[in-house]
Formats: sequence, structure tokens, C-alpha cells
Amino acid sequence: MHVAVINVGDEILAGDTTNTNATWLCDRLDERGVDVERVAVVPDRIADIARLVNEYRAEYDAVIVTGGLGPTHDDVTMDGVAAAFGREVERNPDAVEWLVEHGGYERDDLVEGTSHLPAGARVLHNDVGVAPGCVVDDEVYVLPGVPPEMKGMFEQVAEEFAGERTHTVVVTVDEPESALLDRLGDLRERFDVGVGSYPGEYVRVKLKDADSEAVEAAAEWLSERVDVVETEER
Amino acid sequence: MHVAVINVGDEILAGDTTNTNATWLCDRLDERGVDVERVAVVPDRIADIARLVNEYRAEYDAVIVTGGLGPTHDDVTMDGVAAAFGREVERNPDAVEWLVEHGGYERDDLVEGTSHLPAGARVLHNDVGVAPGCVVDDEVYVLPGVPPEMKGMFEQVAEEFAGERTHTVVVTVDEPESALLDRLGDLRERFDVGVGSYPGEYVRVKLKDADSEAVEAAAEWLSERVDVVETEER
Repeated sequence: MHVAVINVGDEILAGDTTNTNATWLCDRLDERGVDVERVAVVPDRIADIARLVNEYRAEYDAVIVTGGLGPTHDDVTMDGVAAAFGREVERNPDAVEWLVEHGGYERDDLVEGTSHLPAGARVLHNDVGVAPGCVVDDEVYVLPGVPPEMKGMFEQVAEEFAGERTHTVVVTVDEPESALLDRLGDLRERFDVGVGSYPGEYVRVKLKDADSEAVEAAAEWLSERVDVVETEER
Repeated sequence: MHVAVINVGDEILAGDTTNTNATWLCDRLDERGVDVERVAVVPDRIADIARLVNEYRAEYDAVIVTGGLGPTHDDVTMDGVAAAFGREVERNPDAVEWLVEHGGYERDDLVEGTSHLPAGARVLHNDVGVAPGCVVDDEVYVLPGVPPEMKGMFEQVAEEFAGERTHTVVVTVDEPESALLDRLGDLRERFDVGVGSYPGEYVRVKLKDADSEAVEAAAEWLSERVDVVETEER
């Protein structure tokens, strides 16, 4: 399963906010064996959101959109997704009922727009906040931009994201990356597993494959030939 | 000036790394009055990088690409950018000279590929690490993925990114966002400045414009009408 993540928010593009929503979603999807092929951050502009949602839903199996939901002036995420499908946003009866029953709101107290979703969308209730998210045509998932609301809502649909569980071993090595090139080259020739190396204080060599035994064998082979700081299974 | 940022890296898409490079670049560009219109994360795949670089250089004034540089197997950033321009990567004489003079390397010790850049590129030396970055046709800037190397290299070209300096005041308010809607609506009608509201523990209301007096006036008007926790000038 191949997925794209779109994060809507001027505050991310201005560097005021770090996009930890993307990190969290990518990590949860990776745990489920789903490949995230793109993460894109777009401004709070309906046309930009609509264009990217359409580009990605044509290319990937599913698109997860996070951004401002609800009635605030700059919460245009739902409008952008609706525009991508050529639909209106409309007051969603299920969303209103849920807010009245679980949110303790009076129908008339609900600010106009609080429960507006693209026509025909499946509502996702917001256990942490107020404004609901939704799923459109079982391919575009719209979640809140506020992290705790986003996480709670994703867990409601996590089961809908599934792929081949991959096994990962990260070998942290205390040698300069340039010195490891030959051994990493040999490793790639000998073992049919994904190999990535990420320099930092130490070099983290990440071995990844659906075949856990192949990953273990590659990790063992490498560990015998480099200066290992630690080995971590995931 | 409108800019796009592309971050190359499977480790970001797997949720192993938070994309703090994008946050830092967006913040520095915002300080310089430059609008970042897109941030996109792509896998370590030459074709994906080439496609996105071409899409963005056609649409924006400049593109900043960060990712793995140098001779490692999965450092394909330079190859992707070169492919976008239909050029080869080739050993860059300036890069080699600099590494020999400042890096204390012997010509023959330099691992093949360490100083390879797209043909005709302007070299950006790496004061912190080894592998150089570059600028292609004064529109695509290629920087390392390792944060300290990326930051040092960006500062070498920061002057090439300039726009209208914007003035920003962030008013932190201790009221639920839904309660603020009317006052934020009035604020937008009365003042011709950018208004964004970002809920969290408190609601941060960001006022932004090139006209500092307009921003100050809007901040003062708002502060007299909401429960202010703090006011921050930027």
C-alpha cells in the first residue's frame, strides 16, 4: 500500500511549527508496513489543497490530509478537499448528532461550520477536540492539525492502512561513513535486504526487509565487521 | 520571492527522522521575507527527485533541495538534480581543490564521487563535513541532509534569498478558539493584515504584514479585547 501525506498550514511553511504530525503518521504507517511515498506541506489555500489532493489520489492508494478543521477563517482544509472532489461542504447530520450526544453541545450552540464536511463523506468523530474529520470515497482521510486530535482520530482508521510488515535492525557504528563504504557495498551484494546509512554523531545503518531471517543474518554479518555501538531491533 | 523546499530521505518518510531541516530553512527564509510555497519529502529515488525538482523550478523562483550527498550508495540527491537538468554528474575541479587545500585530503584519498556535481554547477563548499553542495543555474540549491552541514552551507547563499521583510506579532490568548471567532472576524474587517490563529494549550493569534504600524495597531486592538497571556514581536 502506497500513501501520501499532505499537511496544510502556513505556520509550518513559516517555520513557526515543526511538522511532527508527519513524523508521527509516517512512523505509524511504517509500523503497519505501509509505504509513505510523499509528504507535502501546502499553504492554507483552497486551490493548492485541491490540486495536490487530486494529484496524489490519482497516484497513490490513499491520501492523509491534516490541517485546520472547523469554523475558523483560516481552516480551509475541508473546503480544499471538497473542491478536489468537486463537491460542496455541508452540515453533516451524523456529526451534529454525535456532538450533541457526546460533546454536550446544544444543536443551536454549534458554531456554523463546526460540523460541515464534503458531501457524502464518512464522518470521523473528534474524541479530543470538537471539529470532526472525515473520509471521502475511502481514499482521502482528513484529520485535524492539532496533534492529540489527529492521533486519536487516526487510530479510529488505522486498521484501514495495512501492508507487508517489515523487519528492521538498526546497527549503530562508531566509524566515519566514508570508511564503511566497501563493507556496505559487500553487504548489499551478499544480502537482499534494504540498506540505509545515516551519519550523525555515529553512523546508523538500517537493515530492512519482510524476511526477518535475512535481516538478522545481514545484521550479524555487518556486526562482525564494524565497530558496533549498539544494535536495535524494530 | 517564492521558494519550494525538497527534502530527500527514506528515513524521513519512515518516521525515523523529524524533518527539522525544513523547519529551520522555512524559518530562515521567513526572516528574509521569502515565502515558502511548498515543502515536499521524497524517497531516495533519482526519478522522483528529478520529477519534483523540474515541477518546482518551473513554478517557483528557487528550489532548495536537502539530502544525502557524497559517495554513499543511497546518496542519490545530486544524481536526481542532475537528471532534472538532463546533465551528468562529474568530478568538480573546484571542489577537489578546496578539499585538498582546506580539508587536508590527498587527491587520491578522495573517495570516487565525493566531489561529483552536476555539470556546470556552482560548488558550495562544506565547512562542517566533506561532500560539497552546489547551485545549478542559479535556481536549484543542493544542500547536505546532515543538519549542521546544511545550516552552514545555507548561510553561504542566504543573501541570494530576499523578499519584503514582514513584521509579525503573536498574541497568545487564554480563551477557546471558538469563543474568539467574532473578534477575529472584526479584526480582519478592521485591519488589512494577515491573521492566523493556532490552537494549542493557548490560542496563538499571529498578525503579519509588511506595514509594521498596521500590525502594531491590530495587535493593540486585539489585546484590548481578549485575555492575553503574552505578546511576542518578531
